[in-house]
Amino acid sequence: MNKQQLGMKLSFLGGVGEVGKNIMALEYNNEIIIIDSGLAFPSDDMPGVDIVIPDITYLINNRQKIKGILITHGHEDHIGALPYVLQDLPGVPVFASKLSVALIENKLKEHRKVKCKPIAVKPKQIIKLGSFQIEFLKVTHSISGAMALAITTPVGTYVHTGDFKLDYTPIDGDAMDLVRLAEISRKGVLLLTADSTNAERPGFSMSERKVGATLDNLFIQNQKRRIIIATFASNVHRIQQILNICEKYNRKIIFTGRSMLNICETAAKIGELRFNKDIVVDVNNIDKYTDEQLCILCTGSQGEENSALARMANGEFNRIEIGTNDYVIFSSSAIPGNEKEINNVINLLYSKGANIIYESLAEVHVSGHAYQEELKTLHTILKPKFFIPVHGEYRHLRAHCNIARDLGMNDRNMLIPEMGDTIQINKNAIKKIGTVHSGIKLVDGYDISDAGGIIQRDRMQLASEGFCVVTITISSKFLSLTSKPDIITRGFLLLKGNEEILEEAKDLVLESIIATNFKTQDWTAIKNNIRKILQTFFLKKVKRKPLILPVIIETK
Amino acid sequence: MNKQQLGMKLSFLGGVGEVGKNIMALEYNNEIIIIDSGLAFPSDDMPGVDIVIPDITYLINNRQKIKGILITHGHEDHIGALPYVLQDLPGVPVFASKLSVALIENKLKEHRKVKCKPIAVKPKQIIKLGSFQIEFLKVTHSISGAMALAITTPVGTYVHTGDFKLDYTPIDGDAMDLVRLAEISRKGVLLLTADSTNAERPGFSMSERKVGATLDNLFIQNQKRRIIIATFASNVHRIQQILNICEKYNRKIIFTGRSMLNICETAAKIGELRFNKDIVVDVNNIDKYTDEQLCILCTGSQGEENSALARMANGEFNRIEIGTNDYVIFSSSAIPGNEKEINNVINLLYSKGANIIYESLAEVHVSGHAYQEELKTLHTILKPKFFIPVHGEYRHLRAHCNIARDLGMNDRNMLIPEMGDTIQINKNAIKKIGTVHSGIKLVDGYDISDAGGIIQRDRMQLASEGFCVVTITISSKFLSLTSKPDIITRGFLLLKGNEEILEEAKDLVLESIIATNFKTQDWTAIKNNIRKILQTFFLKKVKRKPLILPVIIETK
Repeated sequence: MNKQQLGMKLSFLGGVGEVGKNIMALEYNNEIIIIDSGLAFPSDDMPGVDIVIPDITYLINNRQKIKGILITHGHEDHIGALPYVLQDLPGVPVFASKLSVALIENKLKEHRKVKCKPIAVKPKQIIKLGSFQIEFLKVTHSISGAMALAITTPVGTYVHTGDFKLDYTPIDGDAMDLVRLAEISRKGVLLLTADSTNAERPGFSMSERKVGATLDNLFIQNQKRRIIIATFASNVHRIQQILNICEKYNRKIIFTGRSMLNICETAAKIGELRFNKDIVVDVNNIDKYTDEQLCILCTGSQGEENSALARMANGEFNRIEIGTNDYVIFSSSAIPGNEKEINNVINLLYSKGANIIYESLAEVHVSGHAYQEELKTLHTILKPKFFIPVHGEYRHLRAHCNIARDLGMNDRNMLIPEMGDTIQINKNAIKKIGTVHSGIKLVDGYDISDAGGIIQRDRMQLASEGFCVVTITISSKFLSLTSKPDIITRGFLLLKGNEEILEEAKDLVLESIIATNFKTQDWTAIKNNIRKILQTFFLKKVKRKPLILPVIIETK
Repeated sequence: MNKQQLGMKLSFLGGVGEVGKNIMALEYNNEIIIIDSGLAFPSDDMPGVDIVIPDITYLINNRQKIKGILITHGHEDHIGALPYVLQDLPGVPVFASKLSVALIENKLKEHRKVKCKPIAVKPKQIIKLGSFQIEFLKVTHSISGAMALAITTPVGTYVHTGDFKLDYTPIDGDAMDLVRLAEISRKGVLLLTADSTNAERPGFSMSERKVGATLDNLFIQNQKRRIIIATFASNVHRIQQILNICEKYNRKIIFTGRSMLNICETAAKIGELRFNKDIVVDVNNIDKYTDEQLCILCTGSQGEENSALARMANGEFNRIEIGTNDYVIFSSSAIPGNEKEINNVINLLYSKGANIIYESLAEVHVSGHAYQEELKTLHTILKPKFFIPVHGEYRHLRAHCNIARDLGMNDRNMLIPEMGDTIQINKNAIKKIGTVHSGIKLVDGYDISDAGGIIQRDRMQLASEGFCVVTITISSKFLSLTSKPDIITRGFLLLKGNEEILEEAKDLVLESIIATNFKTQDWTAIKNNIRKILQTFFLKKVKRKPLILPVIIETK
């Protein structure tokens, strides 16, 4: 079989919800390159979990093939799992833009065991990893330093957009490099994988610059008020615009929230954020300024508990008290699932008398992902032979395929991937050829393994039903009970007020043990029996199914 | 003090989120009437709770004053707590529209202890309860049989809209009675309380009839497909329209989902839903019909687990298998907080090949609550002297006040209520005069009390951290340990794989007990000490704070 027929393989390792978002593996012959290493945040059925990372067993088992990790941009869902991935794949080189490198280095400070010095690359730069030649391409997105990848493989050219939008008037003046994309297109693009997040949205996304114009206008209209802006800490261009407006209208800026302080400091250090140092004021010096001299920039646009804005709304932020002269701008949109939390914060702020403006009321936010017309532009310029939609829920991937079809692509030339799929692409065809070990790992404190989800399942039951411990003391010498069983409950019937039911439960347990005549010492059978008896009893009496934990103690 | 100066009092008893939604008490002199008795659904921090009902201690303590309960309409947030309220206030008469009475009777079947025969009243009917004279007024809303209340009190007339919108072309042909409202207005309205849900939305809400036109069109476009419609079971007019369209295009209808079957049966029985019985097909006979002959009407528009639609999406609905010839219509909108669940169902349906249409893609749903221009119409016709916005989060109440202000009302004449407030209104002034015992009760199985939220707090901790039971057996005769402590965990460190850490924990407990030299038998102190030691240990070792439950067993 010649190499071209062998083709390249793209594998979609684990992640939550969005295929290809957190991590992908591109393989040719005996070589693998990894694209991104991101995390996801836990869903409602993962109580107590801090973060969710991809299961990279497949990569660990193929360690010797791995040539490097390419990072498209510095958002958590693309770099957040890097410390864990590098711990399992020590020594693999990491390539990323300047800002991404700075953010990764920040992150690695908290994981001292991991030794890695990520390598900064620039747009238009070309690197070679084994048989792969990778060109990095500037794209516009809601974080600076975002890059697409044009990868030349022995089978053909593969372009991966990463997260992107087409912003023709970006804040750094440097639009997405459509000319270079056209050049690459002229030589032929075999495969395109592209961001599908907004494939359901018709039209074009607004330029980031529009937000600046809106904010400028709001600053003029609210000259006498203190202005508080909540936005994503990683949106460096948004923050740059806010800094510029503060400078223009002589307002000092106060950064609040841990990630806001961290990222702004990092971005300023490497020159991604440019401002006069005098403009920044420490929150402890807030009393030296009047309301009209201040702009507070904070985290918490998603209503996150313990974020700077939530603490202000709750009256728990030490130096900042919300009042009727505050003008709060949510320069953000709600990530699905966060609506309730955001509403709570808005209501609290309103009840303290603040004025509030959010996306539905003014153009204070734009999306970082391409809309339908932008995706059409991309497809039309690149004219890929094969297409795999990535980054999005199934509905978005499907909508993206509809766009490709409308532009004339044949259904045979596209494929919607699922988590764990390995897709083979050669000059003539695209097809799913198998699956790799994929999945997720839950990071919970220092613990990164929950075999089979036992802990999560127990927690879900504990959350909705509580538990009940039954202690039985048996004298092994006389083979008799030394006392009546004891019952302790938590998250379930309080002892107080339910004495009668619980006494009845104890009697049932007692009877069941006496019924064995102590002829058996099969504790497991006895425990299972107690579980069954109490489950039936509690379900009947109080319509609940607590986790029941019998403890048998043998004494001499 | 004469009676007019004494004024009437409106008290906002408990509920979740929206003031005045679930229950209100109107008081004059020694008489009380209750408006609605609704429930709320538990929020994320109430794991395992089935429903949330208002705490009516204030009403129980004033039982002898209560003249009756007035029900505005049959949605759960207005009638759902009635069985519990009536259990505490036996014998109080309940007045409601025909459909509401039928829904209440359905509900009471599950609460056999409660004896109550609700009294059906019609729009324009007037009843007298003590010094109150109540006129019921037809309003349009997303359920039929919705009514506003015009209550003549010795102090003046009080109008409460309940949930409403202005639909000039309702399905039953009977629009909101603006002429009667104008007559009432001519005699003077002292107080208005009105629905604020959509006070932030500019313009007018669309007529329910528009949805019918859209659906009709979708039926024409999808003649060859099986059509599945998910909607709110209580939206009788929506269902009537769907039935009419099925009849028009010769499709049979299959009702699925418990509440859909229940409500449709009830509504048909009392003539609120009219259709040819032949049109309805049992799901077990589905195979007798082709796709183009069928329309399936189901619950699950909010992505609810175990709903008919969710089970179809999961492939768990016995007789209905989703395929590429299915056209699924979400004739609904997302209630905030349900977005993720709805997305999951949409993705599952898409992945099975179904075609899907939802609110953002077509006009397949309208809101049941008045938009800004409708509220202006109401205020302009009624010209109330005083105004209290109700039904809505704080932001909506505030937006509603802005509307009243724009129409010329003075800030002194309006007041935003908070849960538990008692507001006094007389001819000259509106003011908050105090608070009543308010709050919520959590219904959890058969249990309706969680004093101080202890169970809920424990469950939240169990959900995110799990627990750890430490059993220590002490011989009371010899004052010594009979064995090494034992540790059992759930939702926290699995025993397997963590033997070392758990052994270390046991040793720490052992040491702490030995250190007491068994001189104390103050078990509480010993338990507290064990809790402290293990908390510190686990936080350091695994960054977790499980609920720690020491159990000390004394043997002879």
